[in-house]
Amino acid sequence: MKKNEKALVVFSGGQDSTTCLYWALKKFGKGRVFALSFDYGQRHQRELACAKRIAGALKVPHRILKINTFPELGNNSLTGTLRVGNRRGRRGLPNTFVPGRNLIFLTFAAAYAYVRDIRHLVTGVCEADYSGYPDCRRATMKALEKAISLGMEYPVTLHTPLIHKTKAEGIRLLKKLGGLDALACSHTCYNNAYPPCGKCNACVLRARAFKQAGIIDPLLKSKRQEFVKVK
Amino acid sequence: MKKNEKALVVFSGGQDSTTCLYWALKKFGKGRVFALSFDYGQRHQRELACAKRIAGALKVPHRILKINTFPELGNNSLTGTLRVGNRRGRRGLPNTFVPGRNLIFLTFAAAYAYVRDIRHLVTGVCEADYSGYPDCRRATMKALEKAISLGMEYPVTLHTPLIHKTKAEGIRLLKKLGGLDALACSHTCYNNAYPPCGKCNACVLRARAFKQAGIIDPLLKSKRQEFVKVK
Repeated sequence: MKKNEKALVVFSGGQDSTTCLYWALKKFGKGRVFALSFDYGQRHQRELACAKRIAGALKVPHRILKINTFPELGNNSLTGTLRVGNRRGRRGLPNTFVPGRNLIFLTFAAAYAYVRDIRHLVTGVCEADYSGYPDCRRATMKALEKAISLGMEYPVTLHTPLIHKTKAEGIRLLKKLGGLDALACSHTCYNNAYPPCGKCNACVLRARAFKQAGIIDPLLKSKRQEFVKVK
Repeated sequence: MKKNEKALVVFSGGQDSTTCLYWALKKFGKGRVFALSFDYGQRHQRELACAKRIAGALKVPHRILKINTFPELGNNSLTGTLRVGNRRGRRGLPNTFVPGRNLIFLTFAAAYAYVRDIRHLVTGVCEADYSGYPDCRRATMKALEKAISLGMEYPVTLHTPLIHKTKAEGIRLLKKLGGLDALACSHTCYNNAYPPCGKCNACVLRARAFKQAGIIDPLLKSKRQEFVKVK
């Protein structure tokens, strides 16, 4: 990596991307990290406010890009009319699978980076417990990195610091990076609930991860998704 | 290719994608071809009406998907505020280059295909005289095909029947397929003009191609972008 390079974090406001934000700040340095969120018609719109608050507290320039296309594609429970459930949908994948979502996010992130001379993209995709989402795998990321670099004639590096970590290991990493408090302000629940519903796939995975890590989720301690305390 | 497979044509309403539509109808058969256009904030909105008319005349189910994200990315003349020009923009590419455009189109097309059990995507990208767009090259398409197939756990084939043809060869192919008349109803001009401005890059390339093919452009003969005559 060259000196003074900039990085763009795809930042949902959830626990994994919050860890990525802290990771990027450590790796690239303050003032060289940017965050990008997507308003793509997700039911859990609450995550966008969380993303904004966390980025603001860390003084990371943050932008929310709108994508209005996913609801038109239909047939998933995150942007469509299906009920969020743990049941399997099409082709054995959870019905929360939005086909192409991470591919689209990262391609738009690369286009956003292109006009700002940013060569590094950071995403919190996680293969180890990836909920059955094929767009969270290392092989997908490598192929996409190549497609983007060729398609924009602009070599980018996709950083996936969590790809081979369990969610529990991700939480421990965030703790080590000094960012655990930020999770009081994060959002994960697919049902857009606060306090979290505790029942959707995302809530179940998050709870299991904290239990495995032996750490109490700051979100559950927080009384009203309080502002992150920055050290 | 298995029997009775379906294909989705990414259909802009221009000359190349019209050729692809005829090509797909021949290869996959009537009733098994679908068309998808994108309303992405392009100045040349006229192409969408042209696409609708051509698809309608050929009885091909056609859908226009909206993508509102590109104008927010800025910095190109197709969706932004720059003037369409032949001058080179960022990194030596024309200022009509919208970073990531074809990657995004094909990924959304694949997501659209995913929920409809369509495994074949057809795009009119053309490497031979590709206007300097890196997302029209074979290597990009191969990498993207892999990224999509892995990312959706859904193997798709990207067909690029024009990739190694000059635009003149593409016109001859369309003639052979019996579709030349359809071009009376097509649109190419970046400046959204009818009659075409004749000055933008797209108009210049189209005029040169017809000249090389030794064929008069049906669009220039047509008095008001008349409805395509289907045989």
